[in-house]
Formats: sequence, structure tokens, C-alpha cells
Amino acid sequence: MSVAEQMAVIKRGAVEILVEKELEEKLEKSLKSGVPLKIKAGFDPTAPDLHLGHTVLIHKLRQFQQLGHEINFLIGDFTGMIGDPTGKSETRKVLTREDVLRNAETYKEQVFKILDPEKTKVVFNSDWLNELGCGGMIALASKYTVARMLERDDFHKRYNSQQPIAIHEFLYPLIQGYDSVALNSDVELGGTDQKFNLLMGRELQREWGQSPQCVLTMPLLEGLDGVNKMSKSLGNYIGINEPADEIFGKIMSISDDLMIRYYELLSDMPLAELDQIKAGLKDRSLHPMATKKALGREIVSRFHGAGAGEAAEENFVKRFKDNEIPDEMPQVGFAIADGTVLLARAMTEAGLTKSNGEGRRAIDGGGVKLNGEKVSDTNLELTAAGEYIVQIGKRRFARIILS
Amino acid sequence: MSVAEQMAVIKRGAVEILVEKELEEKLEKSLKSGVPLKIKAGFDPTAPDLHLGHTVLIHKLRQFQQLGHEINFLIGDFTGMIGDPTGKSETRKVLTREDVLRNAETYKEQVFKILDPEKTKVVFNSDWLNELGCGGMIALASKYTVARMLERDDFHKRYNSQQPIAIHEFLYPLIQGYDSVALNSDVELGGTDQKFNLLMGRELQREWGQSPQCVLTMPLLEGLDGVNKMSKSLGNYIGINEPADEIFGKIMSISDDLMIRYYELLSDMPLAELDQIKAGLKDRSLHPMATKKALGREIVSRFHGAGAGEAAEENFVKRFKDNEIPDEMPQVGFAIADGTVLLARAMTEAGLTKSNGEGRRAIDGGGVKLNGEKVSDTNLELTAAGEYIVQIGKRRFARIILS
Repeated sequence: MSVAEQMAVIKRGAVEILVEKELEEKLEKSLKSGVPLKIKAGFDPTAPDLHLGHTVLIHKLRQFQQLGHEINFLIGDFTGMIGDPTGKSETRKVLTREDVLRNAETYKEQVFKILDPEKTKVVFNSDWLNELGCGGMIALASKYTVARMLERDDFHKRYNSQQPIAIHEFLYPLIQGYDSVALNSDVELGGTDQKFNLLMGRELQREWGQSPQCVLTMPLLEGLDGVNKMSKSLGNYIGINEPADEIFGKIMSISDDLMIRYYELLSDMPLAELDQIKAGLKDRSLHPMATKKALGREIVSRFHGAGAGEAAEENFVKRFKDNEIPDEMPQVGFAIADGTVLLARAMTEAGLTKSNGEGRRAIDGGGVKLNGEKVSDTNLELTAAGEYIVQIGKRRFARIILS
Repeated sequence: MSVAEQMAVIKRGAVEILVEKELEEKLEKSLKSGVPLKIKAGFDPTAPDLHLGHTVLIHKLRQFQQLGHEINFLIGDFTGMIGDPTGKSETRKVLTREDVLRNAETYKEQVFKILDPEKTKVVFNSDWLNELGCGGMIALASKYTVARMLERDDFHKRYNSQQPIAIHEFLYPLIQGYDSVALNSDVELGGTDQKFNLLMGRELQREWGQSPQCVLTMPLLEGLDGVNKMSKSLGNYIGINEPADEIFGKIMSISDDLMIRYYELLSDMPLAELDQIKAGLKDRSLHPMATKKALGREIVSRFHGAGAGEAAEENFVKRFKDNEIPDEMPQVGFAIADGTVLLARAMTEAGLTKSNGEGRRAIDGGGVKLNGEKVSDTNLELTAAGEYIVQIGKRRFARIILS
């Protein structure tokens, strides 16, 4: 692929490339020499349970891989083995060498659903940082000033609002930068929130006489709500280890706009094809439902294997039909002025059951739903005015109106 | 010695003791248990060439030693072996292990003129800092905040005036503090400019569950001028390796006030005796010259051995006599209105020479001084009004008055 073609793939979905011109030069050189670029991305050494948000970056690594470049999947185990030296965070326990290796296996299991294991180098920064020593750390710390470190957005805010910054926090960006020196990386990928640390690699590589890496930032993926970033704690996520049907169903629940975003950041669909889809959706020649299903199939098959997407789609359609509420159904009305209405009685009056006793037994057996929610109280009374849909088993519905 | 007696010795000349009450408790405990206190003082690992200014601290160590406590003479070789990681200072070269050991010998040679070698532990912080590692350095850096480090006076000033502070400069005080942890020291001595770093030891020892060290700061010794601190670059110093006569002569040149200060900080004279001397000088029952000679003898004998002080004094008295300018001498007067006066002619007219030619030859031979300065210009003319002392050889003087 030409440099221009590679750049088009690389730029897809990216927020920023620093510096684009330098990256073109690196690609040009790689093309001529046949030596692939070294692509670096760093990951936490804690046990990963990845969701689609995490895979945005990994997907970009996959694209670099498909362009023939060398992926260095860096596990930042060194700081993990220090733990939280302030002792304040209970969740940042000290990891042992065994923990790190076990977590690395969990990582591989997950990321190799996206990356080609044959073409991925998994590296551990403890390999060079253990060797660095206290003296090396001091020398490293001499390469940067306090004032410039305080320019980092979060440090700046905390300093100005008099929130404590422990001094070792100044050392972590330096370590991340030094990792780039140790790898002699050409490109480092990270989230937009990582920009300062990614640029540190450039600075330090210059100090060590290396050609400074280019930096590529990827956006944070919005969660299912389309507003907040995808996260476990917000519950708006799709975990890559979730069951196929669950993943498919969640993708079907997103908005049409978000679908386009997911296509851009998560799909292998060529850009030209994606442009056609965008046009089709705009002039309504394409139905969003079909496009969303295609995305669902792609994502599910990625994490559950070929064919899994199609199966999940079938299940979805079937379930969707099963849960469909018919337009026509029996209807009974009650006047709220006469008092509350026993659900079992309403069911009998609507003709769903022959007696209140049969209704109670149906509730007791778990076969009755009210507005889609299973009912467990055999003596449930309807008290508020409004429309209720009551359902026995899968197919028998009635509408109760309290007015 | 009782705690109170020890405290009197310890407080002599000290600027500050933090915390006095804690030090009394430590002394009390030491007295009861018979376990001496661990006294720490840190020194640069670069080749030392000590002057009296440096010995103020060492003299205080000697006092602790005489009180029976254990002196830890710490050579900060670890950072010396890093050198200047910014590469900006040409003078801070990386020291090898051999350099450090050689410099340590030079140190010992000098400080053991003051301290008892038998009772002095010379320790190197590389012993524990090499072991600390990069991870240990990070953990150490987590114990202190950026904001508190920026409270150190020099950092504060530099930060506010936008002068760069390299991040490793934040690590050095932590390392100095960690040295106290490694030694489990009871007291650390330093100059007043070291107060922040000395207190760091207290903080870190608390973190490590140790009883925090007490801190004793000693003043910077004023140089011969009595105003600026003694330093090589200002030329106002007395080097401990200088010849005996040089040291004696320099001490004789200081002011009476400075003499009292030197007595307080450098002499072994008991405080009671020093008080008597102060009183004697005040009521003029004592002549300052005699007191100054006694100080000169003590200091010279310390660095050149017993008896050297007395010999230096004798030499001084003899030389002083030789160089004395007599009250009575021939005198000639000239009127400036008549023009400038040739020095050779003035000498002839004053009766020092028989002719101007003889005067010129005397100048040419290097035997003529004008106001104490050797004259080299055989045709020197006196042009400004005033009194001049002209001298040929050692004993022949004349006074020339131009009015």
C-alpha cells in the first residue's frame, strides 16, 4: 500500500496525529527499506476484562498490523509490581511476577481475538526498568522540569486547587516515555487523555539521540447511551466476553448516529463502503435496522467466532417476535371510583382465565406478566388509573383500563 | 555528663535545635541505657580541600564524640557516581568507585585532624541506595508532595521566577532523608541552608516507623572579612592544609568581634573560660592581641600538630617586627604647584640615595617599595598630593609629602 493509502487507514477515527508529516516520512522510509514501523501501545497490568471501549485502540493496532507494521503490546508491569506506594488505594495491590504473567495470559486471550498473535510482540517494561536502578531513575528525572510537568492538565488543576500531587506521580510519565526509548518505537498510540505522556516519549527519545516517535490519539468510545464514555461503572458497556446474544442485543439498542461512530471505530468495513452506507441512510434507500444488524454480526463474530454473528441475529429476530405485543387483544374497563381491582378478577373478566382461582394459580406458577414484568403476588390489586397489558404464557394478552 | 551539661556543649554556637525537648529525651535515654546516640552528618564525595568554614560542623561532631556518642560521617557517593545528569555542569563529573574511595581517603586525612578515627564510622550511601532500585526510588518519591517540596526556599524562589527546576532535584532531599532511615540516626547536623533536607529525615523516619531524628543547624562561618561567608571563591578563607605561618597570620588579621565568633565555633576553650575572656576584653583588662594569638596557636596546632602553634607565633612576631614601619624617618616636602616629582629625585633629596641614578638602579634591582608596593618603573613620577612612604631594602624609610 502506498503512503497515502496507509495514511487514510491510519487516520480513520483518530483524533490527532503528531506529527503527520513525520509519520509520512517514517512510512515512506519503511516502504523503501522493507523494515516495518515499531508501533507501541501500553496497557495496565491489572487483570483485564475488556469492553468495546478498550478495543478502539486495539483495533487501530490491528490496522497497523494489517499494513505490515510491528505491534509492541506493552504491559506496564513494573509499576504494577510497585502497587500504590501511597498505600491509599486498596484496589492497587502489589502484583507479583506470577500475577503479572497470569494477567498477561488473560490479556492475550482477549486481544488476540482482534490482533494476530503471530505478529504481535507482548513486552513487559520490567525487563528494562528493573535494570534502570535508582541512579538511572534520577538521571531520567533530570531530563524534565517541574514547571513543564505541572503543565499537564490534571497536575495543573490539582496544583492550583491545592490538591496533593505525590512526587512519584511525576515519575510515571517519565517512565512511560523511557519505555519508548527502550523500544525505540516509531509510533505510540493512546487515548486523548494520554497525549502528554505520549509526547514525553518524543522528548526522551530526542535526549537519547533517537528519531522521535509519532503520536496517535484515539477518542474515548461513547457507551450505549451515546453520551458518556463507555465504562463498567456507568453500566453502558459491551464486554467482549459477554454472551453473543447479549452483545448483539446491546448493539441493536444503540442510536443510528452511534451506530455510524461504532462503524468508524470498531468495524473492518472499508471507508468507501461506510461512505456508501452513510449516503444510503441519508437518502433513506437503506434501513438503519439492516445496517445495525450487519454491525452486530461483525462484532459478535469477532469475539465468538465465524458464524456466531448470524446465529445471534437469528436468536434476536426470534426473541423480538416472541416478545411482540399484538395490536389486537381483549379489553376490559373498570371505574376507579368503584375501588381497586384484583388482577386475578380482571384477567377472568377479560376472558384470559375461567375463574379468579385459575388466575391466582397462573400467577403462582410464574406465567403472568403485567406490563412486561412477571407478577408474583397472587392478590395483586391495581390501584392507579391507566392502561395495563396483562399476559399469560407467551401468546395470550389482554388490556385492562382503569379510568 | 548530665543531660543539662551535654545540652550546654551541644547548643554552643548552634543556630537551631529541632526539637530541643526530644533531644533531651534521647540524651536521657542514652544516659540510662549506655547506648550512644547515632549522630549523622553528610558530606560531598568530591575531592575535599577543607577550610575553617567546613570545620564548624566537624568541630560540632567532635563535641558529640567527646560526649561519648557515635559519629556517622556519611559520604554521599551515590549521587556523586551519577554526576550531573543534566550535563550542564562541567565540574560535576561522574565519579567512579575508585574516585570515591580515593576522595574518602583525602577526607579522612583532613577530618581526622579534628575527629578521633577510632570513634568515627565513615559510611557510604551507595551501600543502601544501589539496593533501593528504581522501584524503591518511586516508592520513596510517593512519600512527599510536589507542593510541599516547592515550599523549600530555593525551589520556591526559582519556581516563582520561572527558573527551571529539574525533577531529579526533588529526589535529592528524599535521598538525604532516606539516608537517615538507613542509618536510623538520632541526630543530624547540617548548615542552616540544609534545614529543609534535615527535616526530611524526620518525616521519612516517621514513615518507616522510626523515632524521628533531631536536627541541629550550625551557622555558616564568616570569612576573614567578617562579612561574607568563608569561601574559596571569595578568597576570604583559611584552608586547613595551608602552611602554619599562613594560618597564624590570617587569624591575626581578623577583627576582634570575629575572633570571639571563631572562638565560639572553632575552639575547644570551655564556655566558662570564653565568658571570662569576653569580660576581660570588655573591661580592657585583657589585650585582644594576646587572645588572638592564643586562638592562632590552638588552630595551627590542631592542623599542624602540637607545638606548631607556638612556632608559628614566634615566626609571626619576628616577621611583624621586620615589617614594622618606624615612627621616625627622614621627610621631604614638595609643592605640587611646581609639577610632578620623580621618585628617584625625591629619594635623593630625602637622603636615601646619593644620586637619581643610584635611585633608578635601586628600583631596577627590585629593592624599592612605595607605600608597601614594589616599584618597577625607574621613571615613576608622583603626581597626586598626599603622603608617600618610600622604602629601600628592609630598614631604610623616608616620608615624601606632596602638597
